[in-house]
Amino acid sequence: MRLTNMEHRENNNHAVQEPDSLRARIRQWVEDKRFQTFIIGLILFNGVIIVAETYFVGNRSLQMIDRIIVWVFVLELVLKLAGFGYKRYFRDGWNIFDFLIVVGSLAFYSTPFVSMMRLLRVLRLLRMIPAIPALRKIVDALMKAVPALTGVLGMTMLIFTIYAIIGTTYFSEVLPAEFFGSFHASLFTLMQVVTFESWASQVARPVIHEIPWAWLYFVSFIIIGALVILNLVVAVILSYLGQEEEDLHSQQMERLFKENEELKQEMQEMKQLLLDQLKRNG
Amino acid sequence: MRLTNMEHRENNNHAVQEPDSLRARIRQWVEDKRFQTFIIGLILFNGVIIVAETYFVGNRSLQMIDRIIVWVFVLELVLKLAGFGYKRYFRDGWNIFDFLIVVGSLAFYSTPFVSMMRLLRVLRLLRMIPAIPALRKIVDALMKAVPALTGVLGMTMLIFTIYAIIGTTYFSEVLPAEFFGSFHASLFTLMQVVTFESWASQVARPVIHEIPWAWLYFVSFIIIGALVILNLVVAVILSYLGQEEEDLHSQQMERLFKENEELKQEMQEMKQLLLDQLKRNG
Amino acid sequence: MRLTNMEHRENNNHAVQEPDSLRARIRQWVEDKRFQTFIIGLILFNGVIIVAETYFVGNRSLQMIDRIIVWVFVLELVLKLAGFGYKRYFRDGWNIFDFLIVVGSLAFYSTPFVSMMRLLRVLRLLRMIPAIPALRKIVDALMKAVPALTGVLGMTMLIFTIYAIIGTTYFSEVLPAEFFGSFHASLFTLMQVVTFESWASQVARPVIHEIPWAWLYFVSFIIIGALVILNLVVAVILSYLGQEEEDLHSQQMERLFKENEELKQEMQEMKQLLLDQLKRNG
Amino acid sequence: MRLTNMEHRENNNHAVQEPDSLRARIRQWVEDKRFQTFIIGLILFNGVIIVAETYFVGNRSLQMIDRIIVWVFVLELVLKLAGFGYKRYFRDGWNIFDFLIVVGSLAFYSTPFVSMMRLLRVLRLLRMIPAIPALRKIVDALMKAVPALTGVLGMTMLIFTIYAIIGTTYFSEVLPAEFFGSFHASLFTLMQVVTFESWASQVARPVIHEIPWAWLYFVSFIIIGALVILNLVVAVILSYLGQEEEDLHSQQMERLFKENEELKQEMQEMKQLLLDQLKRNG
Repeated sequence: MRLTNMEHRENNNHAVQEPDSLRARIRQWVEDKRFQTFIIGLILFNGVIIVAETYFVGNRSLQMIDRIIVWVFVLELVLKLAGFGYKRYFRDGWNIFDFLIVVGSLAFYSTPFVSMMRLLRVLRLLRMIPAIPALRKIVDALMKAVPALTGVLGMTMLIFTIYAIIGTTYFSEVLPAEFFGSFHASLFTLMQVVTFESWASQVARPVIHEIPWAWLYFVSFIIIGALVILNLVVAVILSYLGQEEEDLHSQQMERLFKENEELKQEMQEMKQLLLDQLKRNG
Repeated sequence: MRLTNMEHRENNNHAVQEPDSLRARIRQWVEDKRFQTFIIGLILFNGVIIVAETYFVGNRSLQMIDRIIVWVFVLELVLKLAGFGYKRYFRDGWNIFDFLIVVGSLAFYSTPFVSMMRLLRVLRLLRMIPAIPALRKIVDALMKAVPALTGVLGMTMLIFTIYAIIGTTYFSEVLPAEFFGSFHASLFTLMQVVTFESWASQVARPVIHEIPWAWLYFVSFIIIGALVILNLVVAVILSYLGQEEEDLHSQQMERLFKENEELKQEMQEMKQLLLDQLKRNG
Repeated sequence: MRLTNMEHRENNNHAVQEPDSLRARIRQWVEDKRFQTFIIGLILFNGVIIVAETYFVGNRSLQMIDRIIVWVFVLELVLKLAGFGYKRYFRDGWNIFDFLIVVGSLAFYSTPFVSMMRLLRVLRLLRMIPAIPALRKIVDALMKAVPALTGVLGMTMLIFTIYAIIGTTYFSEVLPAEFFGSFHASLFTLMQVVTFESWASQVARPVIHEIPWAWLYFVSFIIIGALVILNLVVAVILSYLGQEEEDLHSQQMERLFKENEELKQEMQEMKQLLLDQLKRNG
Repeated sequence: MRLTNMEHRENNNHAVQEPDSLRARIRQWVEDKRFQTFIIGLILFNGVIIVAETYFVGNRSLQMIDRIIVWVFVLELVLKLAGFGYKRYFRDGWNIFDFLIVVGSLAFYSTPFVSMMRLLRVLRLLRMIPAIPALRKIVDALMKAVPALTGVLGMTMLIFTIYAIIGTTYFSEVLPAEFFGSFHASLFTLMQVVTFESWASQVARPVIHEIPWAWLYFVSFIIIGALVILNLVVAVILSYLGQEEEDLHSQQMERLFKENEELKQEMQEMKQLLLDQLKRNG
């Protein structure tokens, strides 16, 4: 959004300099509110078409509409590239995201990789995120919170790794191989345990039945896992609170400090006046 | 509540102008604390009757009492309409809600739609929400929080849609049709997965057994889903904190700014006095 | 704690007036730190005995020790009653709680109600709550948070009632009677659903299989239930934040307002001085 | 980190006094950024080796590499001990932790306790926590939050104990012995119930089928358990908020109070000047 506005301003400057330039006129089209609304509408309509295709598999008309929509997206891409120039266009991460999805859709349309094509058709719906500001805001906020989470994510990985190795080492022969048969199977089982999903009935109780001390493994993992996840939640909440509330609070505090500064200056002026008077009278 | 008070004041004004008007007298009745307590009591008693009816299905006396209560509600509605006039009455959303439930109860009483009638009989209990201030406050607060949630709700819908389409496309033949057989079945299954209910034991493990890469589908959905729900929770908490705490804090800050303003004015007056004195003495 | 301190002071006053009174001396014993530590130790030791009794059912020595401990508790009760007088003793809710448990333990010891006796033996462990300040604090804090929760609790009851009636009315014949067979069975099933426990696999899927529209019942209940519980959590958190943080913040703000008041008074004094000077000079 | 920096400074002082001392030179090596990065890399690489060993059980080369890494860790330990002296080394809790793991790895390498050796091999990964600051910070923060949680932890233990005794006393013969057969089995079952894992389908429903009043046991335990856990979460969040936010806020408040103090002093000086002037003029 911010970037687009910036571009808009630059665009206006250009418009003054070279009002008849084709690039400037295309840019004006592309940045037009109505054009953007049309694209959002088209992505939403595309979503309806893709959902409809799950009910009417292989329906020719739906496939045709889908193909047309892809070509409109390609046209939009070309217009944007033409309007901004490729350097400016690729500066925004979301544009790269758009580009990869649209070009990918195109590339796999005539290939035998039907599975890949179907997946890319669905991923086209992700274009809603950059297109709709409310969604874009959420993803941007989450991205901003990521650095604050590196520690907790590293901790999660460490704990999962240690427990997965222990599980694979000691429990691999107690349960079917899909539970603790290999390191990656153990990781998946721990994911199941940390979400509390049948952790006792399906996983812990059968293991404990064979290896009694395993209760310590599961209870400690649940407590540590819950603590780490609680930490993660607190970190996210704090990063949000930190962004929104602190801003307002700091602004108010800054205003208070500034006002105090003014009061002090006023007072020093008065003191000077008084001292002047004393000198004269003295 | 606020609206009722407003009406009350208007009512008093009216009462002064036309003290014997029937409308004014009815309004006084309807707004009387005892009348409102009686209605709350009646709704609660109606609740007891409806619960009792689940134990003594088809009991004549209970049905009779229920019917009498409905007619008392109709009488209350007529009195309120008479007291406020239909324009003023329908201005409050909660009154429309009341009206629809009572009229609906009446309309379906003598129809063959027994199912609909039974449902409306239960929904009559919802009248407690506008009648009891503590409940009304919660619903009003939730309503106020909704705009802050549009982004998160949109995000939730987008993610559910994308994962439901992928699930329907790739897993429809792996599990029984009630899981990923259609788009809406997939949505329900994802609802089950996001609440962590048997997500591994009933859904993910059988799918992964056939399609190994499906672990990525489920793990990514759980992580993304949990993040989005966490966002939703944070948004709700922030909207509450924003409403309650900020208000107090802002009031205190406003008071501080105002007091600083007064200090400054005092100081400027004093400076003026000093300058006056200097001029005289000079 | 607070009450005990108050009593202590009163006690000292008494001690001055009638230093040799038996009551005053007993009170000094009962309030002695060592006496209280001994009682806490005895309750903890009682806990160990009760746990041991689950392993050695009917062991004579354990039963004997348990009986002795009860008599020590009775002695403690008599001493406290003698020391404080029954009026002062029963003023504290926690003392009434203690009294009921100890007298109950005694009353049921020689009765044929073995079940009741066993339960009271366990409930004696609850005496740890008033005895250990850290636990007492938590329960007191929870008690204080209750009034803030009445609205949310009422809402929860209303929603559970409505959904339980609907469930009993429409689903009673779809599943075994223990699920929706009666109003109270439905309440229990809804408790299961709201904790996400097998809500889909055991409850919702079989119902939806027979009555397709039931998905709306379950999905709406889960969303509304989750929202209400979220509200409850937020209310509890806010009540805590309100108790701890606000206090500090308000104190600081009060100090700021008071300091500003002082500044203003200083300034008005100065203005008066200036005006006096101007008058003299004028 | 802080301690290491302190040591570093002391080290520099020493270096001035005895620049050629072997101990000082070793300390410089050990504290070198590159040495620490190498150790972190080695621990990570060791993790990869240990994971690989779960796939290629008994692979000679992997075992060889693992053995070499242990000897490098021993060398690191000896260097650190030599560089700091054992008194200074063992002052830091994390160093004791390191020492126990490395010495344990060595001690069990040539013993027949293969199980213990395997466990210690995995625990060596825990050395990442003191080695990587982001992880160390989280564990330190959790450690600091522990004292604030003693009350809640005590409460949790009390509630689990009481419910486990009741469960063992009344339900031991209703379900298989692994559920309520003994005190410790009951504790594990309650852990399962408090995480909402199959609490109704596997535990509560079969018990209630035999003992109808048991619904009160389970519902009350879930509500009380959830409340206590909520308390625990709130306590953790508050301890974090208390650490981070309050600090900033208090600093700002301190600055405000200090500025007010300055204003007051300025004012008192001015009043003194005015009074002096009045005296002279009077």
